Amino acid sequence: MTDFVTEARPHSAKTRESERRGFIGSRSGPGAFDGQEAAAILEDARASVDPALRAALDSLPGSMRRIALYHFGWEHVDGTPAAGNAGKAIRPALVLAAATALGGPGARAAAVGAAAAVELIHNFTLLHDDVMDRDTTRRHRPTAWTVFGDADAILAGDALQALALGLLAEDPHPASPGAAARLAACVVELCAGQQADTAMEKRGPAEVTLDEVIAMAEAKTGALLGCACALGGLYAGASGEDVEALDAFGREAGLAFQLIDDVIGIWGDPRHTGKPAGADLAARKKSLPVVAALASGTQAAAELAELYALPYDRRDLERTTLAVERAGGRAWAQEQAADRMARAMSELARAIPDPEAADGLLSLAEFVTRRSA
Amino acid sequence: MTDFVTEARPHSAKTRESERRGFIGSRSGPGAFDGQEAAAILEDARASVDPALRAALDSLPGSMRRIALYHFGWEHVDGTPAAGNAGKAIRPALVLAAATALGGPGARAAAVGAAAAVELIHNFTLLHDDVMDRDTTRRHRPTAWTVFGDADAILAGDALQALALGLLAEDPHPASPGAAARLAACVVELCAGQQADTAMEKRGPAEVTLDEVIAMAEAKTGALLGCACALGGLYAGASGEDVEALDAFGREAGLAFQLIDDVIGIWGDPRHTGKPAGADLAARKKSLPVVAALASGTQAAAELAELYALPYDRRDLERTTLAVERAGGRAWAQEQAADRMARAMSELARAIPDPEAADGLLSLAEFVTRRSA
Repeated sequence: MTDFVTEARPHSAKTRESERRGFIGSRSGPGAFDGQEAAAILEDARASVDPALRAALDSLPGSMRRIALYHFGWEHVDGTPAAGNAGKAIRPALVLAAATALGGPGARAAAVGAAAAVELIHNFTLLHDDVMDRDTTRRHRPTAWTVFGDADAILAGDALQALALGLLAEDPHPASPGAAARLAACVVELCAGQQADTAMEKRGPAEVTLDEVIAMAEAKTGALLGCACALGGLYAGASGEDVEALDAFGREAGLAFQLIDDVIGIWGDPRHTGKPAGADLAARKKSLPVVAALASGTQAAAELAELYALPYDRRDLERTTLAVERAGGRAWAQEQAADRMARAMSELARAIPDPEAADGLLSLAEFVTRRSA
Repeated sequence: MTDFVTEARPHSAKTRESERRGFIGSRSGPGAFDGQEAAAILEDARASVDPALRAALDSLPGSMRRIALYHFGWEHVDGTPAAGNAGKAIRPALVLAAATALGGPGARAAAVGAAAAVELIHNFTLLHDDVMDRDTTRRHRPTAWTVFGDADAILAGDALQALALGLLAEDPHPASPGAAARLAACVVELCAGQQADTAMEKRGPAEVTLDEVIAMAEAKTGALLGCACALGGLYAGASGEDVEALDAFGREAGLAFQLIDDVIGIWGDPRHTGKPAGADLAARKKSLPVVAALASGTQAAAELAELYALPYDRRDLERTTLAVERAGGRAWAQEQAADRMARAMSELARAIPDPEAADGLLSLAEFVTRRSA
């Protein structure tokens, strides 16, 4: 399992150029990606979906509402209104972009509830994952469990799942039962992914295979992005085949996103990530680049394995980071991400052959995989 | 708030007789309750609903399936098959009895999926509540979190909620979207109830009012029993008014059940309850009889408050138990339970005026409130 791991090259002009441009170059020329289009799509999605999200959260009984509004960044700890930092709305934007691509503005309008449901599911998993992983920071703020305690964070997550599936059950659109069934099946996959993740964290680094980490990332991250795209397709009345292609598009883009996210988790700028530098390495996280590096059979892999067996020491951070890079972890992750994006593009073309119609989804996929590390 | 608390009488022949017969006597004469009918209804419900439950659990990915099958008592810790002790199936039986009462055998058959969904929701809340409450025993076995860890128990609960609402989303019956919306709203209420419960446990006994504890019990226990009855009505095509009356019947019976359960939690026989004697008092639980006793303004209430302020000492158990009884906690709970059952009966008669048709639901309500303490 070393064939997909290449030794990292020293920084060449080419590498620096590709980093400046972003990780994956799937378009070039006049229509080249500049992030403006995606930013506008995300902003529109946020504007469309926020009223539905707010209404859903406002329907919660007092104490649960407070926890949910805090988690979404709409309230401070003391219950006073906050400007809001509810994330980038990538998943709702995918629902709406897929619906628009295959059914125009009418389908987009019909899919707003489904977009809100997907975002509620995403936030339910964040609330629970933070409890399990003991993560203390989320979107630059203390996580809900650190503020309200484990029980309240678990219950608020439970309530968000119920709100999400309840929203679809109340939706009279003919696509809603299929969407609810799909979203519920996705939740099971998300749980299995998180289960695999927590189970793997308990095992030694040498006992975890790259295949396992990839499968875990697909369940934990790819599944919901795929489901978001599929739901958009369902609300546009797309064929079963097209819905599956949209799901595959989202899954592949999701895995690319996770690969990039893991790269950022090691080499990202703390001012952008909101996490302390090297947090993933400090936590001995078996992220995709780390496991790829460990599986490389290189001298650097042996050094990394030795370092990972020791408790974290701040003075070793630079050496650990360098070992992952030298063992090819960074290059592998970037190549894998590019490969996954290529597969995503081909699935997208299958579902939506008209490039103009596919443009919104393409921009979003590029956006999530172009964040600078 | 002392008017509904009466000083406990010394054990009279009448009290002993009513205890022997059970807590509430709503029927007498030839048709008097003997528990046989309810036992048969519960057994039939278990037989009808188990295949759907098994199929739902079997659809889970490996690791999640293992936790769920253990929790349902269908597997031992090591994954070998177990005889199964998945509880008394009261909630599925209520769904099926309500459907039968208003729609006959056809409605009963159609409602099996909904009955399974309600049972999945119930078990999702048990998995999560046990984590939050740090309860170590459930149905005479170690709780899932003690065996598999907090994360796995939380995730298995999450997956059960998704399975429940997914089951209804996949159900082509015209009642299923309404049933799913109702069940999802009920989950939010269950969460709010558990939230109130955990929040109250952190407060001093004097800071908790009886109204609060009753509202909490209604949300935590009454809501799902009410929802079960309402779902049966929905699958029988009942009117909105009848569905609401069925919900109210289940809620009132549920509160009666909780009152009796709290009495059993103090005075119950450990050989029947599966919990050590006095567990609720040892945990300083603010159960309904305890809060009623504390609110009684009696000398015994003052003594109980003093005892509850101290850390638990096994030698004080008898004194504490007696203080709750002397302050009227036991008598109040039994009277309240009878009162709630009377209200339940009147709601039942409103939804199902034909006593013969209502017989199954009546038997179940009597069964849950007749367990001997």
